[in-house]
Amino acid sequence: MRKIFGQVGRLKPECIEEYRRLHEVDVYTPRWAGVLSMIRDCNMQNYSIFIEDDVVFGYFEYTGSDYEADMAKMAADPTTQEWWSHTRPCFTKYKPDSKENFYTDMQQIFYFQ
Amino acid sequence: MRKIFGQVGRLKPECIEEYRRLHEVDVYTPRWAGVLSMIRDCNMQNYSIFIEDDVVFGYFEYTGSDYEADMAKMAADPTTQEWWSHTRPCFTKYKPDSKENFYTDMQQIFYFQ
Repeated sequence: MRKIFGQVGRLKPECIEEYRRLHEVDVYTPRWAGVLSMIRDCNMQNYSIFIEDDVVFGYFEYTGSDYEADMAKMAADPTTQEWWSHTRPCFTKYKPDSKENFYTDMQQIFYFQ
Repeated sequence: MRKIFGQVGRLKPECIEEYRRLHEVDVYTPRWAGVLSMIRDCNMQNYSIFIEDDVVFGYFEYTGSDYEADMAKMAADPTTQEWWSHTRPCFTKYKPDSKENFYTDMQQIFYFQ
């Protein structure tokens, strides 16, 4: 299968620069190589993150057969957990009534190959 | 070349349903076939639009060699102009001080193939 995900989130204003640095620089360094390999191992590919002020948008394509199981596998990885201990505190609720305090799945309304 | 674009926009609340219908249903009908073929002719591919309440996010990959020229070509297409006469009035400014009243390019801060 191939399922396309679009996710939106909002950063705390004081954390925007840190979130950018983590994704533009730090994640490609050897310390976090396990984060990238776990993304691949969990069947996520063509992964982009975009930013406009405090709003971040994540796009990726999932090519596995069990998304829940792959997300659980990722969540159990110690390096990813350490990465998230840096990235997740950068987020605030996307909207005041959001349940999630991280990325929220958006609904795809158009696709053209 | 292959350049990845992420774009964000905001819909007028009273136009959300219309914008969804245009992209979930209408655009795939014969009337608008020229819109889709123009997207292809202008070297845009893997195009998705996502929505969360009034916020829309567009993602596509540009594979041509002259983005400005391809966008000018698209803007000169009569069918696309008619399509935009339906879709563009659905938008309001993303932020009160936005210059654009349509999709605004976001900055890509992360990529992993």
